[in-house]
Amino acid sequence: MMKKGLIISVSGPSGVGKGTVLAQIRKDNPGFGQSVSVTTRGPREGEKEGREYFFRSKDEFMKLVEEKEILEYDEYVGNFYGTPATPLFAMSDGGTDVLLDLTIAGSMALKEKFEQAVTVFLLPPSFDELRRRLEGRGTESQDIVDKRLLQSREEIVHADSFDYVVTNETVEQAAGDIEAIIRAEKLRYARNKGIEEAL
Amino acid sequence: MMKKGLIISVSGPSGVGKGTVLAQIRKDNPGFGQSVSVTTRGPREGEKEGREYFFRSKDEFMKLVEEKEILEYDEYVGNFYGTPATPLFAMSDGGTDVLLDLTIAGSMALKEKFEQAVTVFLLPPSFDELRRRLEGRGTESQDIVDKRLLQSREEIVHADSFDYVVTNETVEQAAGDIEAIIRAEKLRYARNKGIEEAL
Repeated sequence: MMKKGLIISVSGPSGVGKGTVLAQIRKDNPGFGQSVSVTTRGPREGEKEGREYFFRSKDEFMKLVEEKEILEYDEYVGNFYGTPATPLFAMSDGGTDVLLDLTIAGSMALKEKFEQAVTVFLLPPSFDELRRRLEGRGTESQDIVDKRLLQSREEIVHADSFDYVVTNETVEQAAGDIEAIIRAEKLRYARNKGIEEAL
Repeated sequence: MMKKGLIISVSGPSGVGKGTVLAQIRKDNPGFGQSVSVTTRGPREGEKEGREYFFRSKDEFMKLVEEKEILEYDEYVGNFYGTPATPLFAMSDGGTDVLLDLTIAGSMALKEKFEQAVTVFLLPPSFDELRRRLEGRGTESQDIVDKRLLQSREEIVHADSFDYVVTNETVEQAAGDIEAIIRAEKLRYARNKGIEEAL
């Protein structure tokens, strides 16, 4: 019985510390797959189709967006960058667990397209703490901090569309919670159908 | 927001090693609640209603069985012993996590009565290994071992009615798997409704 890999995505409001938590999980689990983006910019020296990026024209890219093949995308200096769904399913079919760093909208699109995907919403312990973290970076003006906090308050209402909510008190605890979710999800009967007959 | 305790039950075929795995989890988590049985035998010196047992007459007991308040029961030297549901819900409402050692039928009855309960089916790594474990005890005749193995094969088909399947390769791994399931289940959004508003 070839077991499919788990597809799990983590999202959260602006400033919650998602990047640090995901880096910790990847450090603990170097075998996890991650997404390769589709881009409309041309390949650079040494870049290989499907390794650094999937390279597509703008027309092709927008067609993928229309087909909902691209879960989320963004524009950066005139080029589009998006997360395609099919390569994730191919990795999962090959038995690799895939850990994704997606926007809130991206996780919601993933879940809609692929119900077996597991989505995690990362929460701050409190908005006071979120403010402290944003201010603590010292890189942004008070104005920007206020705007990001307001944005976070708006984003946080989408937690109810996610499978799990993890509060980021510390990196170790949040990474540990997500690792427990991954371990548990792989034990669900629905992901192990027929295991009793295989015995 | 007062959080309810999780109700989780572990079942498995004859000889799988459920008792040892549960003892390990209880050792790691001394705060977990457990069920108090209902019995038709009279209280002994020092036994207190609701602590060692709930003491009921045979008529009362059979009425509880009819009402499906008793999830599973057994007879021992002329007296009945059963697991009642309501005290489990009371413990959970009080915020205590409840870990239950139930028969396969008991877990299925629990899930039917209370959908939010989490059920785990413990599997042996293989039937050869199950045979070795049963024979290794050295306390039972070959005839009894054969009967228990046959019983296990029949019991194992019910795994598909459970939420999770855990293979008992080692006590540490199986206990760790179930502890991950407990940690993860407590993070499900469905068990944390409104957490984002509470922020």
